[in-house]
Amino acid sequence: MKTFFFILLALQLTWQTTQAQAPANPTESMETDAFQIKEFYTKSLTQSSAYRWLWHLCKDIGARVSGSPKYIGAVEWARQTLDSLGVDTVYLQPVKVPHWERGTIESAKIINSTTLGTHTLTVAALGFSAPTPNLGITAEIVQVTSLEQLEKLGTAGVKGKIVFFNIAMDPAYGNTGHAYGKAGSFRSNGPNAAAKLGAVGALTRSLSLKIDDVPHSGNTKFEPSVQPIPAAALSNISANLLEELLKKETKININLQLNCQRHKDVLAYNVIGELKGSTHPNEIIVFGGHLDSWDIGEGAHDDGAGCVHAIGVLEQMKLNQYKPKRTLRCVLFANEENGLNGGKKYAEEAKKSKNKHIVAIESDLGGHTPQGFNYEGTDEVCLRNMKTLAQWRNILTPLGAYLMEKGGSGADISYLREQGVLLLGLHPDNQRYFDYHHSKNDIFENVHKRELELGVAAMTSIVYLFDMHGVK
Amino acid sequence: MKTFFFILLALQLTWQTTQAQAPANPTESMETDAFQIKEFYTKSLTQSSAYRWLWHLCKDIGARVSGSPKYIGAVEWARQTLDSLGVDTVYLQPVKVPHWERGTIESAKIINSTTLGTHTLTVAALGFSAPTPNLGITAEIVQVTSLEQLEKLGTAGVKGKIVFFNIAMDPAYGNTGHAYGKAGSFRSNGPNAAAKLGAVGALTRSLSLKIDDVPHSGNTKFEPSVQPIPAAALSNISANLLEELLKKETKININLQLNCQRHKDVLAYNVIGELKGSTHPNEIIVFGGHLDSWDIGEGAHDDGAGCVHAIGVLEQMKLNQYKPKRTLRCVLFANEENGLNGGKKYAEEAKKSKNKHIVAIESDLGGHTPQGFNYEGTDEVCLRNMKTLAQWRNILTPLGAYLMEKGGSGADISYLREQGVLLLGLHPDNQRYFDYHHSKNDIFENVHKRELELGVAAMTSIVYLFDMHGVK
Repeated sequence: MKTFFFILLALQLTWQTTQAQAPANPTESMETDAFQIKEFYTKSLTQSSAYRWLWHLCKDIGARVSGSPKYIGAVEWARQTLDSLGVDTVYLQPVKVPHWERGTIESAKIINSTTLGTHTLTVAALGFSAPTPNLGITAEIVQVTSLEQLEKLGTAGVKGKIVFFNIAMDPAYGNTGHAYGKAGSFRSNGPNAAAKLGAVGALTRSLSLKIDDVPHSGNTKFEPSVQPIPAAALSNISANLLEELLKKETKININLQLNCQRHKDVLAYNVIGELKGSTHPNEIIVFGGHLDSWDIGEGAHDDGAGCVHAIGVLEQMKLNQYKPKRTLRCVLFANEENGLNGGKKYAEEAKKSKNKHIVAIESDLGGHTPQGFNYEGTDEVCLRNMKTLAQWRNILTPLGAYLMEKGGSGADISYLREQGVLLLGLHPDNQRYFDYHHSKNDIFENVHKRELELGVAAMTSIVYLFDMHGVK
Repeated sequence: MKTFFFILLALQLTWQTTQAQAPANPTESMETDAFQIKEFYTKSLTQSSAYRWLWHLCKDIGARVSGSPKYIGAVEWARQTLDSLGVDTVYLQPVKVPHWERGTIESAKIINSTTLGTHTLTVAALGFSAPTPNLGITAEIVQVTSLEQLEKLGTAGVKGKIVFFNIAMDPAYGNTGHAYGKAGSFRSNGPNAAAKLGAVGALTRSLSLKIDDVPHSGNTKFEPSVQPIPAAALSNISANLLEELLKKETKININLQLNCQRHKDVLAYNVIGELKGSTHPNEIIVFGGHLDSWDIGEGAHDDGAGCVHAIGVLEQMKLNQYKPKRTLRCVLFANEENGLNGGKKYAEEAKKSKNKHIVAIESDLGGHTPQGFNYEGTDEVCLRNMKTLAQWRNILTPLGAYLMEKGGSGADISYLREQGVLLLGLHPDNQRYFDYHHSKNDIFENVHKRELELGVAAMTSIVYLFDMHGVK
């Protein structure tokens, strides 16, 4: 053990550029692992193509919402990129996806305010929002700060009005993902609840901890029996203004114009590239991100970063001339943002296959400095692997990936849970993530090269550890 | 222990905004500590003035190099800010500091290149650089990639020339601070070594891992017996260009013009604010950053962030109505960047005092997400406290501060080492730090509010732990 801790210390102090020398007597597998992982970190920081790939995905393709022609362009980009690595197989997995289009008009105006007169608010339609008539809808605003409050208002308080869901992400959470999870249900479920009570529109406060004039879009869900209503996110500055105005004026009318529309579902693809395992080819280690993005910004952090992390794992294996024992499969999922059809389809096909998925790892929380992994799955698979994962944490901590705990993995891989697959999610620093998320600011320029490359290193290291040691 | 881990888990999962409830039976001090620390994190993320203070320091004062009138403005800003907190004492500690001024002309031009003709390079003078004559110096470039190579060239190879120190920070280091430490000695010591061999000027590659056209300044040292020569940092793009050109052309001349100058030393101040200890007032816990900055940019990360972290500790104590047992002393040091006279002076005064300094904590590595602390000191003090620090690491890890290991603390507090004081340094994520360091990009806009606030929380937590439990 002394030797092992010495190695950890050496890693911590230097991470030097020199080639790792395999230990003279590689009797302790943790020593071998630590040396190999050091190599992955060094090569990720010096030879990875991830940042360049992300540039192409963001600038040559750009936003790539499900159903759009650009999504198909992204599929071809991913296919070519995987192909260029010389992996064993690259193929597409067809899947039907929804096609919602933002349109060209997004406008919200306060009308006849005694304080402000006419005043423009900054909005972005939510995915699956209905369009308004051509001249928009004009209606009174009713503000709610909880779903309970909405229910209490009932049809009498809501019918014919535009409901303003004024629920902010709570800055007190250290983990911004938890703040998003708590506030996010209002964006997902609020407009549907409002529609059921006869509301003619819905506005939601943007899910971001940054107070700026940038609206953050995202999906909203309508039950099949509910007629969708127009629904849009307000920038936090517009939401603040409306909140303040509602303290002064009892009745505020808003005109909302949106010409988004939902088209019929179209064919899309999950993109898959794999390296065949040498000794356990039927044991599949799957890792990936989602290839679709929202239609504003460039989907740089969400989830271009996850895509190039995953493709980067395969590149690292090649750069390090590492021959996997098990089959390493990179999957770039379709339609995470508004349907999860890519993840569902993948799990269906996995169930039919004779191969055994042992672990699935997703990167869908952005390209900032990785802090480790969350894991989940059935109680049995978590319990069986807890101890090993804690040991691996000891190897990864000196490299900055100190987290290895129960928690959410990734939406696309979640459908593999019922097949008993262990699920992991990369956990990057998330203080900035929601500043950009689903907004025009989610662009390449807001991803840092080295932070992205460290994500490749962390993903490669965990894939390597599963390949070497399997799951229990 | 079960209860304690439950608390850690709860912290990790929620960090909720609600007031922490003191445990019904506060028998386990770690429980009490965890609850109090959670409060510091919550209040730092919701009520800290740190970001606003940093705005004032960066925008109302701006760059504040030692000896400049603006440094004295910063002293007054710091005095007023500490005063506004209602702490027990605020005072200034006078100290003489050097006064070097950049001047208005900084120009480097390749002359009569067969490939490029005349070509402008981007430079910034290094601190303590000598000026050139009015029309500059024109001399042949000689490139070296190590100090050994310089010595080998000797007077014959160097006399009358401008030495180009082409040594880059190594991207393979995960910890960019280590890459800086390794490459940084060329900026500090290279021009002096070149001057001793008769060089007429020196150019150094910027110490940054970002390839852009921004030069990164910093100090260079000349021995008292050595006549300073003009010395400037080249942007990485200019350094790359020069490197490539030197592969094509055997002889390249450069004209270098700098009108920087060194004035006589002037009086400056360390700024000190403290809360008196209730039970051990003579035991001092000192924490701080340095108030001076370089004269380009705004000294936002270096070290405005450290200053507001430290002032923020006192604010947290007030916000939490925490009455310290020991005396908590915030020190904003003068002259870290080019002399360390503030730190030296402080240690001298500490030695004369009847009070006992038990620990010193510095924040001088920027305002990014804190990852923990490094510690150092005499072997004895480190050994005595190692176990306790490891226990505290367990409390801080769920909050993201997972590092607690031997390593550099801070330059200003380093002079307290010989007095047996335990020294700690805040260790933030440093992937971006050297992108901004000592350059025009070290501005307020490149500091993230929440990341800065988490630094306040981490600093406050460690100060609290030392106050509660002392040192061994």
